Amino acid sequence: MALLEDLNWRHAVKAYDATKKVSQEHVDKIVEAARLAPTSSGLQAFQVIVVENQELKEKLVKGALNPECMRDCSHVIIFAGWDRYTAERIDKVYNHTTDVRGLERGRFSSYTDMLKKMYLAQSAEENFAHIARQTYIALGLSLAQAAELKVDTTPVEGFDNAVVDDILGLEKLGLKSVSLMYVGHADAPNDWIGQMKKVRTPMEEFVIELK
Amino acid sequence: MALLEDLNWRHAVKAYDATKKVSQEHVDKIVEAARLAPTSSGLQAFQVIVVENQELKEKLVKGALNPECMRDCSHVIIFAGWDRYTAERIDKVYNHTTDVRGLERGRFSSYTDMLKKMYLAQSAEENFAHIARQTYIALGLSLAQAAELKVDTTPVEGFDNAVVDDILGLEKLGLKSVSLMYVGHADAPNDWIGQMKKVRTPMEEFVIELK
Repeated sequence: MALLEDLNWRHAVKAYDATKKVSQEHVDKIVEAARLAPTSSGLQAFQVIVVENQELKEKLVKGALNPECMRDCSHVIIFAGWDRYTAERIDKVYNHTTDVRGLERGRFSSYTDMLKKMYLAQSAEENFAHIARQTYIALGLSLAQAAELKVDTTPVEGFDNAVVDDILGLEKLGLKSVSLMYVGHADAPNDWIGQMKKVRTPMEEFVIELK
Repeated sequence: MALLEDLNWRHAVKAYDATKKVSQEHVDKIVEAARLAPTSSGLQAFQVIVVENQELKEKLVKGALNPECMRDCSHVIIFAGWDRYTAERIDKVYNHTTDVRGLERGRFSSYTDMLKKMYLAQSAEENFAHIARQTYIALGLSLAQAAELKVDTTPVEGFDNAVVDDILGLEKLGLKSVSLMYVGHADAPNDWIGQMKKVRTPMEEFVIELK
């Protein structure tokens, strides 16, 4: 029941205690959960950027729906997807895969040829729509990992992607921001949502079982 | 380290043992992890359909990239998003929220008005693109929950959405399929990938730390 307990424990924190930092050890585990996330065809078409620098956090605030959380949290993690699939990127991933497994490079070439045929025929926007979805798997697993460590978080879509991409120089890395995650420790008296009951769709409305 | 161990344990299974069923208790926990997944504004704009019926699985196979897995796994879970946001759907979620928390209905009306203004101005396609992303958080958490239970899974995007939507009658429920998850127990000798080392992007290429 460990994961279910962790998911019941967590909530999207609305106020952070700026005096409480999260340890590097805990940040590393939260990032590792994202790194281990499964992704379509194993392409892992994204990176995470971890911002601890306060000056940088103050700049990223511009356009964020909850600027106080951005300022007061310990770390901001940005999930940023590849701006598009390319043959070079796909080959790099699969060359690494064969190298790690001690197989000859090109072993999966019929599969990677299929991926290239499919993705390179799409627009960059279609590629990115697919890539962005994958980052949400990682976001979910990082939130769960933080909860296991009793580290508070807030998943965030409400921010100005252009501001974040510009400040972090993501375009020249071939990346585009998708979501953010605030990481820290709640300012409990001001975290109004932490005092309320967790609400989810009742199970009977959520699941349809066809036996 | 529980979650990280579970994520290292799991892989996308390529062959299932058709004689091994997953218990209802385990299926319930896997679904519960999806139900507890955080979603944008707490809207939980999706449902899951759990298919155990063999005849139905045989029909869903049409268009699936790995038909043997669909046939031989114990359960297929379909993650299906709302076809679009509507004022009624948003109000239903927030009425449930206030009811559970013992607050008067309408307590969050300025927030729900903002959501309606934003989402109802978008096309159904834009709505669904946003909704589909959320389902991946749930997919990730269900995969992690299965791993905790040592239940094997395969996350799947390679299937014919139109076939699945039609067979399950999703259109009249206002839902559209996004992804599938096979749940079962691996046929280890034929699950070639289970014998290979897990490969991920090296940490130094995955994370950028700005301190």
